[in-house]
Amino acid sequence: MLVSSIFLLVISIPARAAPVEPRSLVFMISDGFGQTSEALARAYMQLMDAHWTSPLDPHLVGSTRTKSTSLVTDSAAGATAFACTQKTYNGAIAVDANGRPCVTIMEAAHRKGYLTGLVTTARITHATPAAFAAHVADRDMEDLIAEQLVNSSAVDLLMGGGRCHFVPHDQEGSCRNDSTNLLTSKYNMQSNLNITGLPTMALFANNHMSYEIDRTDQPSLSEMTRSALSALAQTNRAFFVMIEGARIDMAGHDNDPATHLHEILEYWRTVEVVKKFVDQNPHTLLVSTSDHETGGLTLGIDPEYIWHPGFLAKVTRSAETICQKLKRHQEDDMEDSVGEAIKKHLGIHDASESEIDGIVKAVKDAKVCKRAVGNVVSRRAHIGWSTGGHTGADVGLYAYGRESSRFHGSMENTEVGRELANYLSLDLSKLTINMPVVSKRTMFAHTYIDHN
Amino acid sequence: MLVSSIFLLVISIPARAAPVEPRSLVFMISDGFGQTSEALARAYMQLMDAHWTSPLDPHLVGSTRTKSTSLVTDSAAGATAFACTQKTYNGAIAVDANGRPCVTIMEAAHRKGYLTGLVTTARITHATPAAFAAHVADRDMEDLIAEQLVNSSAVDLLMGGGRCHFVPHDQEGSCRNDSTNLLTSKYNMQSNLNITGLPTMALFANNHMSYEIDRTDQPSLSEMTRSALSALAQTNRAFFVMIEGARIDMAGHDNDPATHLHEILEYWRTVEVVKKFVDQNPHTLLVSTSDHETGGLTLGIDPEYIWHPGFLAKVTRSAETICQKLKRHQEDDMEDSVGEAIKKHLGIHDASESEIDGIVKAVKDAKVCKRAVGNVVSRRAHIGWSTGGHTGADVGLYAYGRESSRFHGSMENTEVGRELANYLSLDLSKLTINMPVVSKRTMFAHTYIDHN
Repeated sequence: MLVSSIFLLVISIPARAAPVEPRSLVFMISDGFGQTSEALARAYMQLMDAHWTSPLDPHLVGSTRTKSTSLVTDSAAGATAFACTQKTYNGAIAVDANGRPCVTIMEAAHRKGYLTGLVTTARITHATPAAFAAHVADRDMEDLIAEQLVNSSAVDLLMGGGRCHFVPHDQEGSCRNDSTNLLTSKYNMQSNLNITGLPTMALFANNHMSYEIDRTDQPSLSEMTRSALSALAQTNRAFFVMIEGARIDMAGHDNDPATHLHEILEYWRTVEVVKKFVDQNPHTLLVSTSDHETGGLTLGIDPEYIWHPGFLAKVTRSAETICQKLKRHQEDDMEDSVGEAIKKHLGIHDASESEIDGIVKAVKDAKVCKRAVGNVVSRRAHIGWSTGGHTGADVGLYAYGRESSRFHGSMENTEVGRELANYLSLDLSKLTINMPVVSKRTMFAHTYIDHN
Repeated sequence: MLVSSIFLLVISIPARAAPVEPRSLVFMISDGFGQTSEALARAYMQLMDAHWTSPLDPHLVGSTRTKSTSLVTDSAAGATAFACTQKTYNGAIAVDANGRPCVTIMEAAHRKGYLTGLVTTARITHATPAAFAAHVADRDMEDLIAEQLVNSSAVDLLMGGGRCHFVPHDQEGSCRNDSTNLLTSKYNMQSNLNITGLPTMALFANNHMSYEIDRTDQPSLSEMTRSALSALAQTNRAFFVMIEGARIDMAGHDNDPATHLHEILEYWRTVEVVKKFVDQNPHTLLVSTSDHETGGLTLGIDPEYIWHPGFLAKVTRSAETICQKLKRHQEDDMEDSVGEAIKKHLGIHDASESEIDGIVKAVKDAKVCKRAVGNVVSRRAHIGWSTGGHTGADVGLYAYGRESSRFHGSMENTEVGRELANYLSLDLSKLTINMPVVSKRTMFAHTYIDHN
């Protein structure tokens, strides 16, 4: 079977022990978090304290240029740029522009003796985490990504959502296309944050994890991060962990400002957790940046020079959840249901007929519905969005802790990756992967899921 | 007469000689130049050289937060934040939020013995330069600003446009409301770049100077800057000069991407001139930042992850000039005239009927016309704009040369101003201005000009 023969990933260098002097790396990716998003969330916090600044603000050292082989990247090529230090085509998961698998800094670090980890609020098989330890032609091949993550063993700790790609298709909650059961691998399967022993996989949701604004019982990104850092630090081995605030991006795609905001606030809480860890473990470097901007977010629209962050404070549910709920309502009561939802979940009591009507008409189309709901808030807050996709803007680059001065000025995403490799004393050019070249046309068994 | 009694500006500290150790400061303001604009212009340059980076890119040290007492600043409050290190209301020219004139770093530097200069592509009476050496309740009071600039003598070198506010109303090209002739002041009036002796005023246009894309006989910003630095350096005295790329902003207001681009390219050429000066005069510090973002510029719009900088290469005139020309054409030939203009000046040969019709209908309204013309280019280039005004985004902060490490991380615009003052060893809190409190309601004689 083709699929099972593909992930025989061999990195052809002799195994070496971790460097004598321990140097750990926490690389944080705020997916789809542009510089205007930072201004938005900061202004929101400043409603309570006019002089508040974010935990990242003091550590801004430059910016990351984000293009892939296209001027506007997706998250797959964006993560591959960091992970393989190479530009590639949108959709590529750690394969180069010619479809050749490229060694990632995580694989190289693992081979060198570092412990490795991936933490995300998305499916663990989603583009950003995948590009650090899997190699497929297209990000949608998430079944295969799940197999590679499990079988390559390049990652000691996997934490996030996406359980559905590890469960055989005949089990409840599966989104696999085959009967492979990846839960029976050598990984400890955990369902809580008390990590005991590595390698461990802790998948807290079938699909993506909850938006922070909707979150009830799942752990938050900062909670997962605290647990992951604790588990990695207990080993007394140097480590490299990638932590992704994945759904900042998804709320940007939905043009849903309050959900976007709360994902950012949780990302900032996670930064605080990591900064505290760095303070206590000064051999650690924290680097935080984004793969791209999402949504073309703008603060202030014609004609006034003002915007109103206060409207974001009234929102209690994501547009995604509101639209999912509405879809289950009776069609003939839909106008009332929408009006109620706007009052209850957006805190808005003066919705116009056309706003309500716009949502009623969109309920069957999740994408349109979410943007219509988000727009009710954005319009009042004077927040503009110019796209439901990504943009070519530069994004912020932050560094804190050991050797943070490696990062400064405007850097290409590939340069950021190279500097991460340099920090870990990895020379990716000396490593190769024994895997066949793949092409976008190669037909692997894979599922198509709306990947934002 | 009230007006003439107002500008008796007295700074109540004893005059001191310039510091023994000369330390000069070039403070550059790229008005309305957001971080996405940088990505736009860089991508344009990379059409010719894929690895091109801007002369500012290596010197990005952080970002400037831009709010005034409103979350979205205008250029008057933005410049006052730098100049007085205080937040104030939009429209305020070096007066605080209560309308009290505030000492500017330029006035304090001048009093301390530094030579001072203002260089801009706008009218020299426009908000940004004005806020460094004039104090009025509202930026539109440009007649009064002109009087204050001339009579306060806080600026040794004034270079830019705006001659019309210095000429009595009965003379050609005047935009003054009175018969005051400010050209007969103690300033040398120059009409070329060979500055001989200070104080000097060199005003090269009645109104704003030409957009770079339209420029014929006027000097460019980089040429003015070379001349100004040469004149200031010849004195062997330390100096503080503010250099403004003023019309980056205006093209952003017009949502005119190619004109915006060429203003940025000229700003970058100016940065190169200043960097060369710093290299030759290492006692000099260059700081470059913006007062705010303009236009809510976005690179990439639904649904593709791409944008096309190549369309900007075909444009040869600003939307402003195209609309001014069209206005002089016969109304009954307007459709043909618009079609011809689009072909000739935008390099576009497939304009749709609705695009042409949109411009035909807008010709009488300059603002609408300019945005309609710009939009023909933006749509093809996949460039989005979400407003014709300013936004609340953070902007890039760059520093190069002596003590550049003073500037790092995310800084409030007022903090940037304070660090400039610290660099020049100025303590603004110890200085006062003997001027009456003004209010937005105070009725000075002033003209209303579309101030972008």
